[in-house]
Amino acid sequence: MAMVCLSDFEAYAKKYLPKIAWDFFAAGADDCSTRDENILAYKRIHFRPRLLRDVSMMDIGTKILGTEISFPVGIAPTGFHQLAWPDGEKSTARAAKAMNTCYIASTYSTCTLEEISAAAPGGLRWFQLYIHRNRAVSQQLVQRAEALGFQGLVLTADLPYTGKRRDDVRNGFRLPPHMKLKNLEGAFEVCKMSPSFHSLLDPSVTWNDIYWLRSLTHLPIIIKGILTKEDAELAVRHGVQGIIVSNHGGRQLDGVPATIDALVEVVEAVQSRVEVYLDGGIRKGSDVLKALALGAKCVFIGRPALWGLAYKGEEGLQEVLRILQDEFRLSMALAGCASISEIGQHLVQFSKL
Amino acid sequence: MAMVCLSDFEAYAKKYLPKIAWDFFAAGADDCSTRDENILAYKRIHFRPRLLRDVSMMDIGTKILGTEISFPVGIAPTGFHQLAWPDGEKSTARAAKAMNTCYIASTYSTCTLEEISAAAPGGLRWFQLYIHRNRAVSQQLVQRAEALGFQGLVLTADLPYTGKRRDDVRNGFRLPPHMKLKNLEGAFEVCKMSPSFHSLLDPSVTWNDIYWLRSLTHLPIIIKGILTKEDAELAVRHGVQGIIVSNHGGRQLDGVPATIDALVEVVEAVQSRVEVYLDGGIRKGSDVLKALALGAKCVFIGRPALWGLAYKGEEGLQEVLRILQDEFRLSMALAGCASISEIGQHLVQFSKL
Amino acid sequence: MAMVCLSDFEAYAKKYLPKIAWDFFAAGADDCSTRDENILAYKRIHFRPRLLRDVSMMDIGTKILGTEISFPVGIAPTGFHQLAWPDGEKSTARAAKAMNTCYIASTYSTCTLEEISAAAPGGLRWFQLYIHRNRAVSQQLVQRAEALGFQGLVLTADLPYTGKRRDDVRNGFRLPPHMKLKNLEGAFEVCKMSPSFHSLLDPSVTWNDIYWLRSLTHLPIIIKGILTKEDAELAVRHGVQGIIVSNHGGRQLDGVPATIDALVEVVEAVQSRVEVYLDGGIRKGSDVLKALALGAKCVFIGRPALWGLAYKGEEGLQEVLRILQDEFRLSMALAGCASISEIGQHLVQFSKL
Amino acid sequence: MAMVCLSDFEAYAKKYLPKIAWDFFAAGADDCSTRDENILAYKRIHFRPRLLRDVSMMDIGTKILGTEISFPVGIAPTGFHQLAWPDGEKSTARAAKAMNTCYIASTYSTCTLEEISAAAPGGLRWFQLYIHRNRAVSQQLVQRAEALGFQGLVLTADLPYTGKRRDDVRNGFRLPPHMKLKNLEGAFEVCKMSPSFHSLLDPSVTWNDIYWLRSLTHLPIIIKGILTKEDAELAVRHGVQGIIVSNHGGRQLDGVPATIDALVEVVEAVQSRVEVYLDGGIRKGSDVLKALALGAKCVFIGRPALWGLAYKGEEGLQEVLRILQDEFRLSMALAGCASISEIGQHLVQFSKL
Repeated sequence: MAMVCLSDFEAYAKKYLPKIAWDFFAAGADDCSTRDENILAYKRIHFRPRLLRDVSMMDIGTKILGTEISFPVGIAPTGFHQLAWPDGEKSTARAAKAMNTCYIASTYSTCTLEEISAAAPGGLRWFQLYIHRNRAVSQQLVQRAEALGFQGLVLTADLPYTGKRRDDVRNGFRLPPHMKLKNLEGAFEVCKMSPSFHSLLDPSVTWNDIYWLRSLTHLPIIIKGILTKEDAELAVRHGVQGIIVSNHGGRQLDGVPATIDALVEVVEAVQSRVEVYLDGGIRKGSDVLKALALGAKCVFIGRPALWGLAYKGEEGLQEVLRILQDEFRLSMALAGCASISEIGQHLVQFSKL
Repeated sequence: MAMVCLSDFEAYAKKYLPKIAWDFFAAGADDCSTRDENILAYKRIHFRPRLLRDVSMMDIGTKILGTEISFPVGIAPTGFHQLAWPDGEKSTARAAKAMNTCYIASTYSTCTLEEISAAAPGGLRWFQLYIHRNRAVSQQLVQRAEALGFQGLVLTADLPYTGKRRDDVRNGFRLPPHMKLKNLEGAFEVCKMSPSFHSLLDPSVTWNDIYWLRSLTHLPIIIKGILTKEDAELAVRHGVQGIIVSNHGGRQLDGVPATIDALVEVVEAVQSRVEVYLDGGIRKGSDVLKALALGAKCVFIGRPALWGLAYKGEEGLQEVLRILQDEFRLSMALAGCASISEIGQHLVQFSKL
Repeated sequence: MAMVCLSDFEAYAKKYLPKIAWDFFAAGADDCSTRDENILAYKRIHFRPRLLRDVSMMDIGTKILGTEISFPVGIAPTGFHQLAWPDGEKSTARAAKAMNTCYIASTYSTCTLEEISAAAPGGLRWFQLYIHRNRAVSQQLVQRAEALGFQGLVLTADLPYTGKRRDDVRNGFRLPPHMKLKNLEGAFEVCKMSPSFHSLLDPSVTWNDIYWLRSLTHLPIIIKGILTKEDAELAVRHGVQGIIVSNHGGRQLDGVPATIDALVEVVEAVQSRVEVYLDGGIRKGSDVLKALALGAKCVFIGRPALWGLAYKGEEGLQEVLRILQDEFRLSMALAGCASISEIGQHLVQFSKL
Repeated sequence: MAMVCLSDFEAYAKKYLPKIAWDFFAAGADDCSTRDENILAYKRIHFRPRLLRDVSMMDIGTKILGTEISFPVGIAPTGFHQLAWPDGEKSTARAAKAMNTCYIASTYSTCTLEEISAAAPGGLRWFQLYIHRNRAVSQQLVQRAEALGFQGLVLTADLPYTGKRRDDVRNGFRLPPHMKLKNLEGAFEVCKMSPSFHSLLDPSVTWNDIYWLRSLTHLPIIIKGILTKEDAELAVRHGVQGIIVSNHGGRQLDGVPATIDALVEVVEAVQSRVEVYLDGGIRKGSDVLKALALGAKCVFIGRPALWGLAYKGEEGLQEVLRILQDEFRLSMALAGCASISEIGQHLVQFSKL
């Protein structure tokens, strides 16, 4: 079977992953409206391509928070990579490094931060953080990540409680006994994984906790989950360095807009004071181009990365990234852009449909 | 089979109820456009969730007409509960009381008002009234309800004649011989139940009859069926205490708007002079949140309550209510609201789709 | 099988008519977009129903061109009724008279005008006319119709050539040998019926021919096929007494708007100087109410009349009309109107969808 | 099987062509959104037909760049006609001449320009050009075409690189060994055809190369692929004689608008300074009429021509053209236009849908 586009990897993963793992990765909240909108919304955005520009020399590299990456697609934080591939997050780290892009490692990794670092020394990595009721746990994690050379701290802000993912409830989803949330071992008892493991998170977190985080680390702080101009403004005022427009892959509050629809509002509010990224619904290189045209500095992929892992671990994820890279480069060229700096809002129009 | 969300109860009821009963409960008028719109319309309303607010202490209680209920979801008036569960409306009354919310008992109950009262003493109940050609019948009912401690009178205003529900005509729907419209026994001969039983209702009722009703009782009067600002204004001027925006579950005039679409217009016209409620299409906690964001004080569920009864009587209905309660609390938290008072129109946007 | 609504008759006709006849009646031009739009467009129009009006005494009678009819639904001109029922147009005439409404007999009838008149003496009938290349043929027809007591002349203006109905071409549609276009017998040779029989019509007809028609007869002239304000204005200026907004059931130019969508524009242009009617897509009583709310004085049904004939001839068509009548009366009542004069544009809104 | 409309030819071709050839012709880029939009977009444009105009004498002839053609539909450039019919482009040339319309021969023909010319002497033909990295190749082609009597030069501007057509990648599409890109033989080694054969094209081409082309030939230059007003303006300023609004049949950048949607913008920008044509999505005569109403001087068909060839070579393609011609003439007449000059924007409205 030729792996030609990302949906080939999706089909493979659906076929070969254990149902409980596929369901967990695929899950959206409630009716999955937002999860599905994340993808459909791209179809309503049309390109205005420009012709006869010299696109013989394509430069698709960019920088995020000052660090160069080979193209504006990174790996969004997702949990439990061992559910997709035995080597888990170590494979993810290696693939991201091989492709010279950014990997945001999840708190809920099935490998330790130390293992992840050792698997791909020198790779660009950010660490994704939930704030636990026991703040010492979070503090330790931040400080371990910084010590290990992680270069950014991504605070997930849209999960005071876990969204209702019906299939996970039906399946009684929990990690198999041989997998662990290794970063949290010792910090507290987590062997009985269930959807309620999130109940260890602190739903009382507020904007002021950004100051607390700031006090713990020199790392830049990126906030993930922003969907409105009001929160974008608050994020900037509280001193974050970046914003990821995200709806948690449609897994939290069902009924929020597609991220690509929320992006414009956030970008306008932020006015270039901090970098804005996006995750959710990226399935083709042209989706990346649309997100950049609407103001994203970089996008991150969640489920497609897991499908790549499920296919062939590190190698499969590299294939996913390479396909996106090739498609993105081609889309840029066909739209008449030879470098990232030529991409702008003039490249797109919103469809009447 | 795990009962995870309301559609699980719907699937159960469709499978286990006699076809004639399922069809009666499910029926919409004509092409069922309005019935289906009631649900689809929610998908066009998107949330604007706010992050990093302290949602550790959630308070979802509210008041309707001054009485506290545990959350803003009550039981809409529907007929013939014995078609769903042998104990009929007695089970409904018990479940509503157990969940500390309001139950609007229908004129067309298969238990007497006395049986309903006795089944769950002290529960918050309103009585739903049709005005009969023989006004003495209606007067008796109102006075019985008031004497029994019902705390509100809900006048259904959208049924001068019964809507055309094709399946009921095809099925020749009528109550099984062992069930009775017990509240009307003695008042007139009703043993030959058929869709035409509604012909006992008075199609000449006008706004002036509100004054007549007022003269019969001290109970607050809530009018049900309003869909326009003009009628909302008339309702307020005629001294009602509440308005239920309703299209009778899409069972009357096919082609009227979804209730959630009509809500905004009514709320704007009413300007907080009376409380505004809504029924129709509520299937998830996030639907409740949308209705409250658009100005409803409380919503009422019709068919989902019947599915709960069909599943396990009182217990099944409690399960339905508890699921809605949990989903509503979670939706509020994920939208950044810790109490009902924080909900407002800023939480939603209408989708371009 | 209970015949509850018009689609029951459609299903019956599709099942029992010879395929070639069903295809001919069902045909739309090209992709049938307009044919299907005629129906879909009604779903985008929503009611604004008014409550608590005295609807105990319903009066649904109206007048067209001064003549009373029992309700605002007549029979549109369609050809070849013997394809649907052996008695053909005689049955149609009897049913229309029995229901006290208007029947527009087609030039392409399989009974003579004399047979039609004799079948239902005293019924309100208009005669539909195509203008033939041989004007004498048309003149004769007009004068026969007037002599027979037809009370209006309906000029079909949208068929200079026949639309392309793919199935008729595939089927090589022609009338069976035992059926004749009886009104045209003798006038010219028509035994070899084929889709090209329309080639006898004159594509050079212009507005000036209205004056010629006027010179032939004292009957009021109604023009059928108008879809724009420009042509509506021309029609009024050329002295017609009525306009039927029609797209020939979607059988002529595919891609023209649904008639209910074109109605508003025509009504506004006409400013009550002449009566405006509509055909196309009427399937329920509420469709009639929408058309009247948007300014139509009366609507006409085409295919549904044929389905009625196919079911049980005169009796079947009466059943179709009675269902529409009951549904229309009920819709009016549920919208809060007790008589036709209370219907107006305030009753509807166009849906955002 | 009666061939009644173009989709009959499509069905035939899908059934009888080798899968690899069908897939190549049918392919769109990525998700084929633009390919499909090309067709769907016509359904959103509604006619405003005018009645009672004398349409007895229809004149559907027009001129492009001063040359008369029998109706405003030509053959768009597509490659590899031998995949559809053994005689390849020779059949295409004969059919176009027989129907007295314009054939744009592709650089990627499987017959030489000389063979094409000899097959139908005196036919109106334009030559479609890609600019190769080796400019001498392109120069030779231009000069051969001019010497052979081709009357226009069509520069394809939207293919600096080939779009990603998933099925071609899966199929490992290449020409069968017995077919050759005959126009390029000798110029360079092309026997190993693969999707990458396009890599011989020069992605560094810019607007200045129009001047270079101009220096090579006296032929009028038509630029193909324009979708924006900005590029339309540049095209005019660089001295082209015509613009083909095209998205390469949806085969290049997926997500660009349907050509019929882009047409208005281009026509407005051009202000009649040069002729504007369109290709993409034409499947019926009424589509041609819509394109002309929105400002196109002529349209070109791509895939439908190949279906015609696949059906019966020259004869099949003539049948396709004749059907379009008949449908176009009929649509004009039904819209009230007797000649091309009567077609204008007043004939259409954009649907609210």
